[in-house]
Amino acid sequence: MFRPASIAVVGASARPGKAGHAMVQALRHFPGTLHLVNPRGGDVLGRTALPSLREASDVDLAVLVVPPDAVPGALEDAHDAGVRAAVVCAGGFAESGPDGARIQERVVRVAQEAGIRLLGPNTSGFMNPVDRTTANFMPAVADLAPGTVSVVAQSGGVNLALAFLLARAGVGLRLGVGLGNAVDVDFPELLDHLARDEATTAVGLHVEGVADGPALVAALRRTTARKPVVAFKVGRSDVSEFARSHTGALTGSYAVTRAALQQAGAVVVDSLEELVAALVALRAVRLPAAARVGVGLLTGQAGPGLVVTDALGARGVELPTLADATRRRIAELLPPLTFQRNPVDTGRPSPTFGDVLGAVAGDPAIDVVGVYALDEPGALDPVAALGPAAGRVLFASGGPPDALAERCRALDAAGIPMLAGPGDLATALAAVVADARGRAVADAPPVAATRTVGRTLDEHEGKTLLESYGVRTPARRVAADRAQARAALADLVHDGGRVVVKVLDAAVLHKSDVGGVHVGVADADALEAALDAVDAIPSVDGGPTPRRYLLEALAAPGVELIVGAVRDAAFGPVVLLGLGGAAAELGRDPVLRLAPLSVARSEEMVRSLPPAVLAGFRGAPPVDVPALAGVLRAVGQVVCDHGDVTELDLNPVRMTADGPLVLDAVVVADPAVPLRGDTCPA
Amino acid sequence: MFRPASIAVVGASARPGKAGHAMVQALRHFPGTLHLVNPRGGDVLGRTALPSLREASDVDLAVLVVPPDAVPGALEDAHDAGVRAAVVCAGGFAESGPDGARIQERVVRVAQEAGIRLLGPNTSGFMNPVDRTTANFMPAVADLAPGTVSVVAQSGGVNLALAFLLARAGVGLRLGVGLGNAVDVDFPELLDHLARDEATTAVGLHVEGVADGPALVAALRRTTARKPVVAFKVGRSDVSEFARSHTGALTGSYAVTRAALQQAGAVVVDSLEELVAALVALRAVRLPAAARVGVGLLTGQAGPGLVVTDALGARGVELPTLADATRRRIAELLPPLTFQRNPVDTGRPSPTFGDVLGAVAGDPAIDVVGVYALDEPGALDPVAALGPAAGRVLFASGGPPDALAERCRALDAAGIPMLAGPGDLATALAAVVADARGRAVADAPPVAATRTVGRTLDEHEGKTLLESYGVRTPARRVAADRAQARAALADLVHDGGRVVVKVLDAAVLHKSDVGGVHVGVADADALEAALDAVDAIPSVDGGPTPRRYLLEALAAPGVELIVGAVRDAAFGPVVLLGLGGAAAELGRDPVLRLAPLSVARSEEMVRSLPPAVLAGFRGAPPVDVPALAGVLRAVGQVVCDHGDVTELDLNPVRMTADGPLVLDAVVVADPAVPLRGDTCPA
Repeated sequence: MFRPASIAVVGASARPGKAGHAMVQALRHFPGTLHLVNPRGGDVLGRTALPSLREASDVDLAVLVVPPDAVPGALEDAHDAGVRAAVVCAGGFAESGPDGARIQERVVRVAQEAGIRLLGPNTSGFMNPVDRTTANFMPAVADLAPGTVSVVAQSGGVNLALAFLLARAGVGLRLGVGLGNAVDVDFPELLDHLARDEATTAVGLHVEGVADGPALVAALRRTTARKPVVAFKVGRSDVSEFARSHTGALTGSYAVTRAALQQAGAVVVDSLEELVAALVALRAVRLPAAARVGVGLLTGQAGPGLVVTDALGARGVELPTLADATRRRIAELLPPLTFQRNPVDTGRPSPTFGDVLGAVAGDPAIDVVGVYALDEPGALDPVAALGPAAGRVLFASGGPPDALAERCRALDAAGIPMLAGPGDLATALAAVVADARGRAVADAPPVAATRTVGRTLDEHEGKTLLESYGVRTPARRVAADRAQARAALADLVHDGGRVVVKVLDAAVLHKSDVGGVHVGVADADALEAALDAVDAIPSVDGGPTPRRYLLEALAAPGVELIVGAVRDAAFGPVVLLGLGGAAAELGRDPVLRLAPLSVARSEEMVRSLPPAVLAGFRGAPPVDVPALAGVLRAVGQVVCDHGDVTELDLNPVRMTADGPLVLDAVVVADPAVPLRGDTCPA
Repeated sequence: MFRPASIAVVGASARPGKAGHAMVQALRHFPGTLHLVNPRGGDVLGRTALPSLREASDVDLAVLVVPPDAVPGALEDAHDAGVRAAVVCAGGFAESGPDGARIQERVVRVAQEAGIRLLGPNTSGFMNPVDRTTANFMPAVADLAPGTVSVVAQSGGVNLALAFLLARAGVGLRLGVGLGNAVDVDFPELLDHLARDEATTAVGLHVEGVADGPALVAALRRTTARKPVVAFKVGRSDVSEFARSHTGALTGSYAVTRAALQQAGAVVVDSLEELVAALVALRAVRLPAAARVGVGLLTGQAGPGLVVTDALGARGVELPTLADATRRRIAELLPPLTFQRNPVDTGRPSPTFGDVLGAVAGDPAIDVVGVYALDEPGALDPVAALGPAAGRVLFASGGPPDALAERCRALDAAGIPMLAGPGDLATALAAVVADARGRAVADAPPVAATRTVGRTLDEHEGKTLLESYGVRTPARRVAADRAQARAALADLVHDGGRVVVKVLDAAVLHKSDVGGVHVGVADADALEAALDAVDAIPSVDGGPTPRRYLLEALAAPGVELIVGAVRDAAFGPVVLLGLGGAAAELGRDPVLRLAPLSVARSEEMVRSLPPAVLAGFRGAPPVDVPALAGVLRAVGQVVCDHGDVTELDLNPVRMTADGPLVLDAVVVADPAVPLRGDTCPA
């Protein structure tokens, strides 16, 4: 596909402005055999066009620049000519509606029968500048510089946009692929290809939607184990309608996809511009996996240095204070008025700049160093000063664009990435940190579901299920009538204790809102009042009548968190951890991780809570990290084990001094999933 | 200062690498008279240096490139030579510690006595490429292209970095000034200068700290009334220590400074890169003031278009659906498979591209149009297609850097800003929207404080003060002893009502945390228990003993918000509006506005609450916007009127069905402010 010895362009056109014309121009530097096919034959850009692909021989790749309904026939011709790979450029397939979807199905069938691998349809093609194979309908791609960065973009247009943004940043391309509708070649296979490709040192991904989440995650893990991957996910805001009209992909859950990409070791960024800055850095600088990464910052001018420091801080990248020995060494090298703690500001660059960098890079707390200095040829030679730290240093500068471009090439040759400004330097440093940290936590292997719960569980059943996974809940009693409720109260209340009285009915979803939760009941009168209120709740279809009650010992105080899980359509079981109360509902996003969770992953998840919460918010006991991590693993395991559980909500889980206690549990099942194995409700 | 007919460089040096050498090189294209001064005389870069500034005549500007302790003498010489303006480049003044601060004081005194205006000290200088007056110690500034964007940067280094980032974006410079320590020339005066400067069409600001907030706000208002201002504030994360060592400025409150800049009409951005993208756009495209701005988006390729749409959505910029007539017109111009609702995707650019743009731009809901299309010379001529919409259209493209640079120049000549990629286009469109919206709300004029409250008020005093400003509170009684408390209970409780019993003591700040708030007291027993608990609170120094009690009718339910005010050291009275509970304490930032608040401003402030809260969160009554806005205005007015009120906390203010009700009030006064006018506590 990407390194053919011969290519046939089907639909090659002599008419400027046509895609079949642009494609031939784009392949003008192709070093192999180029066949042009046009039913009318004739001369196309100085070559004689064949009337049919059947007349060509030894064709490795067919590039189809023909209308959708001509594609199946062209693929049959390609099969007859012995072609094994094809790029289908035309749009008008599944993304355009039912008619296009039918043609797409036919294309897939024909290609499978013919044994032809497909890129597209609905793509601009791919670019392999290293082998001068640039099969894309924008002629300018023929002159893209070769490099070591590869890109896989869901959109052919974004593939092109990225290639040129990389060129603007002075970065050449190893391989750039636009997937389009991706009926055959898709992210996972390409990632595995790029993981093995020695010429690729970093991979950029543009993701709109993901068809097969687990396959993507698995391929990403294999890739990130060998080289850095930076991913940009579209869909922060709701763009689903426009997206569907584009490549037919569902954008899926933005939060889940981002979490999955990160968990598989990718560096996730917020824009194409950040993607480029991250790739500029990571193609040359990759640190060993580490939970903590120390960043040093060295600046020739304090003002831009302050901007970089600020941007790093906003991204959660801290600059550790340098060791005393390092500071003593720097004090010998710099005038006393400069800031020397990290960041280290040199005032103006002096001949000692390289030595200062050496001191910072040699500090035991520092893994990578960012350097910002204006381009002053007389005052600083960055190649000489930074060269000895190559592989652990990134540079950014300001100066006339032409001078910077030249500087960038010289630094590139020395293995030092150069960014365009303070913001890009911060983005790049944060990406190097994220890449190293992203590989520091090992994940548990996927598991297959072996059981079902059968139906949506009521609170008692849900808690019983969770208890069997080691999760703690308050002591409770189920009462089928008032007499049982009174006995339960006597059972649960001693020494001035109090209980919570709740309605027990899986169909009542928001118990508090309908008067189904009564906290602090201590005596018979209060109990009767609570039971009256529960009985007054209108029946929900399918719920038991008369009501059953759940009495539960009042839990000790503590911070309340929300633990949950969902079964994502693309990625499968996902565990959520969020803050309770209004913080959760008013836009503070929960932390998401794919299940099953390893011990390390579950603890990393807990530690992503705000420090104020971990330490014990508002005088509450501190969060027991291993114990809460255990709850998260249990919740993940429940959803992984039971194929019909679609959602699980523990809201709240209270962080008492004795550890986390689940105060409410909702386990929702999909009745459409056939019963399997032991069903769980007792 | 910025357009001198003659310049003297004091400290001009023949030695490469010295700042005095670089400065002379930077002024190599200066068209006026250039004197070089060096005590040793001799030849400097082919000119004869004068041994002293006194020997020069008709010097308009002295550029001092001498060590700090030589500056006062040089200023005296300048005075003798009739100089009226000077740039002081050296560092080592107030930013470096007490010794430097003493020299700085001397410099200011000498300059004032000599009637010399100062830029700096501790700056790299300024660049005025339009008049080829580039007095900055980076020689490359001599070749900066002239343009219409002016920059005022607190840091000389950032001034340079920005000038070259603008150059990279194809934008020339009208005037770039690095303020440094800003002992004389500062933001306000420069803003007024640039507001009047016909050659400046847009202004960029880099702000570390603000010395005189009201002066900055007033100057900004005058400037933004005439031309767009884009501001980048440093200090999102804590960089105060490094910042102080840099220009001696305190970074101040990031949130307050940003709010003040926005309120004064500036577009506030998050990075220097965003500053550049915003200036690229706003230098050529400015819309009339409007509370709502409709953005259209037209794309040649759907993938990048989706990225722009997503980024706009994330910034809160919506793309209104086009009118039926517009869509009918577009349907005639485009093939049926493309997305035509806004964004409008053309599939591939066709000859109708300009007509489609005309249709979008002509839609009644559309004020400005963003266009993204890859650079395909055969398929689209952007100058021809976009030209008719100039002034209301921004363009971004992807292609070979050289081709784009040429395209950018051609579009620039046609009045169409060109951005480098999808992210920059979204940033630029958002900036055009923010500029138009930033001028849509009129602010109240500043007022001077005329009174004091005398001391920190207890809850009853605080509420009484607020009531005199029209704010509503629940019915309450102060009780000095238990008998009065019992009478108050009888007074407040009828028809099964309940009260809140609180400790009344200005010294007890967190009443709930110490058992000083008892909600739902209805009878004598509960009252006695509550009073016992209040009596048990340990005395805080200065508080009354025995305790006094406050009894208050229980308020109707509703969403709880926090309303407050602070007196910011730089900007004066600021009103805060935030969510109550954990949402407030766990990182959801309150909305801030400078007081006093106009009606329009206070209502804009309320409407910035999350829509879910405004509509009535969790079944609560909807927020009464005008009534809550009234509370905000009252709070602002209290702080504006009373010079000693440093902080005001209404936590919570409950949004009942009958309007907002203040449930608690803390009014903190600074005892160091002398009593003035009527003191308020009765």
